Amino acid sequence: MRFFEDIAIGQRREVGSFTFTAELIKKFAAQFDPQRFHLDEEAGRASLFGGLAASGWHVGSVCMKLLVADGQRLAREAAARGEEIAVWGPSPGFRDLRWIRPVLAGDTISFASEVESLRSSDSRPEWGILQARNTGTNQRGEPVFSLLATAFVPRRNARP
Amino acid sequence: MRFFEDIAIGQRREVGSFTFTAELIKKFAAQFDPQRFHLDEEAGRASLFGGLAASGWHVGSVCMKLLVADGQRLAREAAARGEEIAVWGPSPGFRDLRWIRPVLAGDTISFASEVESLRSSDSRPEWGILQARNTGTNQRGEPVFSLLATAFVPRRNARP
Repeated sequence: MRFFEDIAIGQRREVGSFTFTAELIKKFAAQFDPQRFHLDEEAGRASLFGGLAASGWHVGSVCMKLLVADGQRLAREAAARGEEIAVWGPSPGFRDLRWIRPVLAGDTISFASEVESLRSSDSRPEWGILQARNTGTNQRGEPVFSLLATAFVPRRNARP
Repeated sequence: MRFFEDIAIGQRREVGSFTFTAELIKKFAAQFDPQRFHLDEEAGRASLFGGLAASGWHVGSVCMKLLVADGQRLAREAAARGEEIAVWGPSPGFRDLRWIRPVLAGDTISFASEVESLRSSDSRPEWGILQARNTGTNQRGEPVFSLLATAFVPRRNARP
């Protein structure tokens, strides 16, 4: 993970893709979102989704999984180059989550993250505040998912 | 589930509570958010969280699980009284998700949902648009989680 000073607005990284199989859709739904169109093909086809659809929370959780894996990979690579690793703060939350289109069984969603804003923290000068737009796009190039994440990022020059 | 006309601003329902055990926290994290403070007690204690902490996506997914279960219970009760059940539309997303405090292993979080705004849909007169503030509160009465959900709710008088 990078320091605040090393990040620029507009920087984008592809964080990976994931295929939402019927089995995984039903497994998540049974645990966390047991609505019929997330559990049963026939009910999904009869719904506005038009097919067995992943829970929106499943889509968000998979985005998180891929962001974490990508961040860990970048950190390992930086460590291997002998660079210092920035440890980001816990996320206070996010804004403006949109489930734009259904994610249906068999869809492969590619996730990306793009830096949208950067500012210093008045109350905590050792941190900067980053907003990133995290998005998911299906195999037809259609956007399906978007959220505006907030993160506290350590400043290189302000560490104790 | 209720029709738009049957809902008033300020209506609140308690949707249930859930204890985040260490086992469940680690199981979710291993699948969707494998950061060390979500996977290991010692790493959690050494982090800003101060203990093994649930992934924010786990907290949100559990809130969804309880909302769905409560909605299904209300629908069954209404059906048993011979009332017509309103079928809500898919959620387009939500705004302003906040992870306010860590949810640590052993914490019991009580979730509630309160209607914050209601308006008609200009483009779809058969639907109303509801915003509800969904919240989670721990066993000490401290808020830990909040989001502003948007839902399309059918109008009783505008159905075909």
